[in-house]
Amino acid sequence: MNPLTVLKIGGNVIDNPAALTRFLTTFSTLTGDKLLVHGGGKIATQIAEKLGVQTTMVDGRRITDKPMLDVVTMVYGGLVNKQIVGQLQTLGTNAIGLTGADAGVVKANKRPVKDIDYGFVGDITEVDSGRLLSFANESLVPVMAPLTVDASSGTLLNTNADTLAQAIAVDLVHKRDVTLVYCFEKKGVLANPDDDNSVINQLTPEVYAEHKAAGSINKGMIPKLDNAFAALNAGVARVIICHADELAAALAGTAGTSIVMNNE
Amino acid sequence: MNPLTVLKIGGNVIDNPAALTRFLTTFSTLTGDKLLVHGGGKIATQIAEKLGVQTTMVDGRRITDKPMLDVVTMVYGGLVNKQIVGQLQTLGTNAIGLTGADAGVVKANKRPVKDIDYGFVGDITEVDSGRLLSFANESLVPVMAPLTVDASSGTLLNTNADTLAQAIAVDLVHKRDVTLVYCFEKKGVLANPDDDNSVINQLTPEVYAEHKAAGSINKGMIPKLDNAFAALNAGVARVIICHADELAAALAGTAGTSIVMNNE
Repeated sequence: MNPLTVLKIGGNVIDNPAALTRFLTTFSTLTGDKLLVHGGGKIATQIAEKLGVQTTMVDGRRITDKPMLDVVTMVYGGLVNKQIVGQLQTLGTNAIGLTGADAGVVKANKRPVKDIDYGFVGDITEVDSGRLLSFANESLVPVMAPLTVDASSGTLLNTNADTLAQAIAVDLVHKRDVTLVYCFEKKGVLANPDDDNSVINQLTPEVYAEHKAAGSINKGMIPKLDNAFAALNAGVARVIICHADELAAALAGTAGTSIVMNNE
Repeated sequence: MNPLTVLKIGGNVIDNPAALTRFLTTFSTLTGDKLLVHGGGKIATQIAEKLGVQTTMVDGRRITDKPMLDVVTMVYGGLVNKQIVGQLQTLGTNAIGLTGADAGVVKANKRPVKDIDYGFVGDITEVDSGRLLSFANESLVPVMAPLTVDASSGTLLNTNADTLAQAIAVDLVHKRDVTLVYCFEKKGVLANPDDDNSVINQLTPEVYAEHKAAGSINKGMIPKLDNAFAALNAGVARVIICHADELAAALAGTAGTSIVMNNE
């Protein structure tokens, strides 16, 4: 099968214009079909504050009430997405910015209220990977904002960008040989969170379990790695976690962390 | 040639959620290929005010400095565009929201500074109507925000929505039988601006000149009508100006104003 790379770029890189430009410059040179999923960054919180919209976080997750939904729709779907698309156009990459609502590419259900009401947050139900491939076949590079659509009400839903990237990658596995890359501000998965150079080159489920038990892998890395292993289990060929500045080296196998089922 | 309808919906309708829903409901029932261009509405001014970004208007036109460009990118490209796309999805119309940057569909140059520095405002240089038709051929309905892209710098540019609709319509005339419809909050072009029922059914260049001289057609109607006649002169088959609530009747020829070269 033809290869396709799904890349996710995190908020910390988006908050740093110079780092974002470096990443997009490398991204634009990658050969083969590709798709970019971007996170939000701190700008949504800053804009919300100026607009008098209160940011409420529970366990590191944003509660998305209606005013906050409008803010993330503006910031993720408008400002961040279109700035990335514009920049990629000048780099010779024919990017097309999308939310899940556009062409109905990613549908979701509003998360049911259990202990916590997360508000307008989406749990993905359907990815139209056929449509995404039709864009790729026309030499377009989809750039996805972390927003999905509730197909029954038409409302946008705030959706975790790591999960969105994983769901898109997984939906493509029967049609393409998929590589999923999470780019962020660390050099990979660290054995010691206080040592930026303690990168684990290959992370197996066993080593992951040991680090979780020891507390050396914790917080935001846990949902990211759960997403990574879920992608691998669902047939994604390669899953890589790396620094945004080391994307090319990570794809060549000389930087970052490869998520693997067994040590090679 | 196959027919295609380019519709522009103005800011006053966008500011009224019930009116917007009525319009989108009718829009979704129109048969044949179609494309929607939307304006901005007052919400950009309201958001700008809350963000402490000053709105400066010269001769009814917004001066778009960098902070205002960010506001219109958020509001037009994010909030307004995605709310329309989401609503159309629930109405069974497979809409895809686009700015001129997305897939590079509408490129522009930043307007040169003469007497007035309009800031980040675009004068359209290139429409990729082939790309827009390829979306139509895949049963997608493009929904265009009034933003174009400077191809050399990648910056978004604020662009008048009437002009954008006209430029897209004109670029399609060699490939499709194009109807251009401007929908707004009046029943058409009025012979007497104080009488909402004084609709001119057919407006010729001669009658337009008379009304301009008499001052009964003035202000914002003049650039709108200049755009309309320019479209007709460039080969657009039909140009209609009508109330958003009377779209179906106007397309059937029983409401609104038809812009024509000669009385029929």
